Amino acid sequence: MKSDIEIAQSVTLKPIAEVVKQVGIDFDDLELYGKYKAKLSFDKIEKIKANKLGKLILVTAINPTPAGEGKSTMSIGLADALNKMGKKTMIALREPSLGPVMGIKGGAAGGGYAQVLPMEDINLHFTGDMHAITTANNALSALIDNHLHQGNELGIDQRRIIWKRVVDLNDRALRHVTIGLGSPVNGIPREDGFDITVASEIMAILCLATDINDLKERLANIVVAYRYDRTPVYVRDLKVEGALTLILKDAIKPNLVQTIYGTPAFVHGGPFANIAHGCNSVLATATALRLADYTITEAGFGADLGAEKFLDIKTPNLPTTPDAVVIVATIRALKMHGGVAKTDLGKENVEAVRTGFANLKRHVENVRKFGLPAVVAINEFVADTEAEIAVLKELCAEIDVPVELASVWANGPDGGINLANAVVNAVENGNAEYERLYSDEDSLEEKVTKIVTEIYGGDKVIFGKKAKTQLKQFAQFGWDKLPVCMAKTQYSFSDNPSQLGAPTDFAITIREFVPKIGAGFIVALTGDVMTMPGLPKKPAALNMDITPDGTAIGLF
Amino acid sequence: MKSDIEIAQSVTLKPIAEVVKQVGIDFDDLELYGKYKAKLSFDKIEKIKANKLGKLILVTAINPTPAGEGKSTMSIGLADALNKMGKKTMIALREPSLGPVMGIKGGAAGGGYAQVLPMEDINLHFTGDMHAITTANNALSALIDNHLHQGNELGIDQRRIIWKRVVDLNDRALRHVTIGLGSPVNGIPREDGFDITVASEIMAILCLATDINDLKERLANIVVAYRYDRTPVYVRDLKVEGALTLILKDAIKPNLVQTIYGTPAFVHGGPFANIAHGCNSVLATATALRLADYTITEAGFGADLGAEKFLDIKTPNLPTTPDAVVIVATIRALKMHGGVAKTDLGKENVEAVRTGFANLKRHVENVRKFGLPAVVAINEFVADTEAEIAVLKELCAEIDVPVELASVWANGPDGGINLANAVVNAVENGNAEYERLYSDEDSLEEKVTKIVTEIYGGDKVIFGKKAKTQLKQFAQFGWDKLPVCMAKTQYSFSDNPSQLGAPTDFAITIREFVPKIGAGFIVALTGDVMTMPGLPKKPAALNMDITPDGTAIGLF
Repeated sequence: MKSDIEIAQSVTLKPIAEVVKQVGIDFDDLELYGKYKAKLSFDKIEKIKANKLGKLILVTAINPTPAGEGKSTMSIGLADALNKMGKKTMIALREPSLGPVMGIKGGAAGGGYAQVLPMEDINLHFTGDMHAITTANNALSALIDNHLHQGNELGIDQRRIIWKRVVDLNDRALRHVTIGLGSPVNGIPREDGFDITVASEIMAILCLATDINDLKERLANIVVAYRYDRTPVYVRDLKVEGALTLILKDAIKPNLVQTIYGTPAFVHGGPFANIAHGCNSVLATATALRLADYTITEAGFGADLGAEKFLDIKTPNLPTTPDAVVIVATIRALKMHGGVAKTDLGKENVEAVRTGFANLKRHVENVRKFGLPAVVAINEFVADTEAEIAVLKELCAEIDVPVELASVWANGPDGGINLANAVVNAVENGNAEYERLYSDEDSLEEKVTKIVTEIYGGDKVIFGKKAKTQLKQFAQFGWDKLPVCMAKTQYSFSDNPSQLGAPTDFAITIREFVPKIGAGFIVALTGDVMTMPGLPKKPAALNMDITPDGTAIGLF
Repeated sequence: MKSDIEIAQSVTLKPIAEVVKQVGIDFDDLELYGKYKAKLSFDKIEKIKANKLGKLILVTAINPTPAGEGKSTMSIGLADALNKMGKKTMIALREPSLGPVMGIKGGAAGGGYAQVLPMEDINLHFTGDMHAITTANNALSALIDNHLHQGNELGIDQRRIIWKRVVDLNDRALRHVTIGLGSPVNGIPREDGFDITVASEIMAILCLATDINDLKERLANIVVAYRYDRTPVYVRDLKVEGALTLILKDAIKPNLVQTIYGTPAFVHGGPFANIAHGCNSVLATATALRLADYTITEAGFGADLGAEKFLDIKTPNLPTTPDAVVIVATIRALKMHGGVAKTDLGKENVEAVRTGFANLKRHVENVRKFGLPAVVAINEFVADTEAEIAVLKELCAEIDVPVELASVWANGPDGGINLANAVVNAVENGNAEYERLYSDEDSLEEKVTKIVTEIYGGDKVIFGKKAKTQLKQFAQFGWDKLPVCMAKTQYSFSDNPSQLGAPTDFAITIREFVPKIGAGFIVALTGDVMTMPGLPKKPAALNMDITPDGTAIGLF
């Protein structure tokens, strides 16, 4: 069996300028990065603002398990299938972070015969967006520390600087550092830490901004610290939002690439799905909607986190709302939700499918709470048995949700035609009536409570001492009208990663809130959130190499 | 008077693919980054390996003063003038670091009517080379700390890790840090520090590598730490040279841009001129030599540091040796070398020109010690008086060195025609006979001593205690056959920045050596070397902004 990189390198790519002609993009609309990657010019984005809007399909999943679900692969395969059926389709996906690429994953651009290409570039520096975000983030840090060093005119409390530095790497040794050591010429000594770039608020901002002015305004609204009197210090107080916007002037433009089968794809922005909203950029999705009849996009983690945030945080910034939601699952993963250990997944277990279906069922019900039709996509594996598939179909029929097997990893678009037809049906039935779960006017407590009770299936929310204090402060600062961004384990509906299936009768504890005023949401922390991964004992980097003629080895 | 950015933005750029046709580069040889920047493909670099080599002109300067010399501006104007005269000319320059751009300088791509464009992009992220180097550097750091954390199989002494992290920013608070704090899951606590990216050994390596294999070999040779028994730990011991090379796969390809007057220019690589050799990449210079009749390139700081390193460190990696050396000076700067304070530069002072000429004279003599003809280029200022110019010309005639005034900042190529003619004369006289100052077989002491006595004009070298110990160690490790890279103040021939003119009877103290085995040289530190600048009280970033349509403001 060929590896992802072998399949990718066996494909003869078309110049990206050729690929995007099918959606009405001309050569002059592009800023090329090599022959196969491009950014779309602001001129073009502006020019098509009045275009008719296409249909929007959100791809999400059950709670992830170690068995793997293949959400990106499914999104790409579905788009290729729709294109093959004659629907003018575009993809809008997140761009991968280099940290996990060098660490464990080795790559993140779909898989098998459902990949976006050139996968080597997408997985390495791509068009430099991550680096621009890293630079903007750390320029802000340097400017804050310089402000302290030069006399601290704003009266920043150096113990309460919440703006951290970032690197786009897995580097556990940088989680907790002390800086400014050694001598007065080296600045003010203080504690600091580094997050991975995708956890930067600037990444979330870039993905929610609708144009350069909006970007600048959001950057100006970032809270970087508090004064001794506990009032917030914003970027606008430092007067550096212009410089930060300038640093991001190209990163904000959506990137265009192609799938193996020539479907044009935006791959742009990739905020963390825990302390941020986990979706690609609003600009990419909105632009795809104006260029294509169908836009396939994806949200991070399972639907409890990813789809909820897509629908409550991202959707209000889009020019339209989703027409259907695809929920990806696998028989293997459902069996794990039904209590089977990973080592036993090779054996048929119909009962476990039946039990594990509870997880999928709750996600379907949740999608319907947003007024949207759901379609279940089963990512086929060789070991899936007929009996297992039959029971799953029966269970889906009981709740009246269309379900289709798809084998896009192995078969490309041909493996996704049935799914594509089901999606087209759901869209053309036209009964999508998007409704947000909460309104801006709800208090932060109400927003969190609605998410926990209506989406997670919990019965109450406990606000810790710090969170309670913050609720009062945030209301004073006028931050309580913002949406909530939940930071919770992706493995369970509850805050306990080992509670698979569809747990009930649980409470969720909110330990702390984190203001992301620039991004425009308040993060609610339900536990410790990892914002800087570490490298494993044998990092993927050890297998990477390059031939003398420049061919990449060891990305997968 | 228009600012640099106003002049730059008033120019209608030609697509870079059009610009490079004049030197035989086709569209398919390019990897475009937008319409006006491109990287040259390895295929093309390979294809022209047997081309006839053009003439190489090195542009250097007297010891810099606060009055400014304008070396890059002169290089660009000279190339434009040569092109205008019908000589097929290319430029090979360094790319600027973002740190100083955000800090003090606001930009570094020439000035006035002698600029490389698009200056906004060149000064910001350009084609991402700096970011790739930052990432490779910090990936190595993360892999080292991960190695410690995962059991330290190589027995690295955590107190003797010499590999530091980098950011491409001016950030004094990161000079001295402690990392790995907080908990055992955060790795091993230790001291560390951040340099600016251009000070990374990987930058020097990128600029000296002749192809991908050479790059990988040099990366493998980096010394990152010592074991408890003081033996060196190399990157090859960590087995990550493949991954690091992969991260640099595009950064190694030379970048093409254009001058205001359409001269094709390589702008590629920019190592510090103190702890590194301060020249653009060997690949860019060598490729320019194969494409153009004349290649104009530049070395950092004054000729005592920049030209010496160009000739002793870079030249042996080039396919040919320089044909002439242009030494840039200004009347103002000569007056400062003659003892005039900056505030008094507006007044005529013929005697000060006469006294300050000693500095220029020694640089001319030094260039001749390398067997090369020198040409003096006086960067004209309005305040220069006829008497001052006359005495300078008289003094130059005494030592038989051609001298020309040039006004390329104000007048573009027309201001550089006389200089260009003088350079062509010097080249066509053909009496360049390059000779390296020292041979590889000289010991490190001998190499340093030759530089100090023959180039700086000092009378002896004092090796400090640590340096003496290192001389023995380095000989044991087989490192003593490498060239020496002097880290000395750029303001004086001596190690005392206030000794202007042409000091004599001084000693240079070598405090410490720093092994850069990957780059292939040994740095000799004559004092404290700043490898991480700080931001000023009012950073240039405060003036930067961007209009809603994407036009940059505040770069200059």
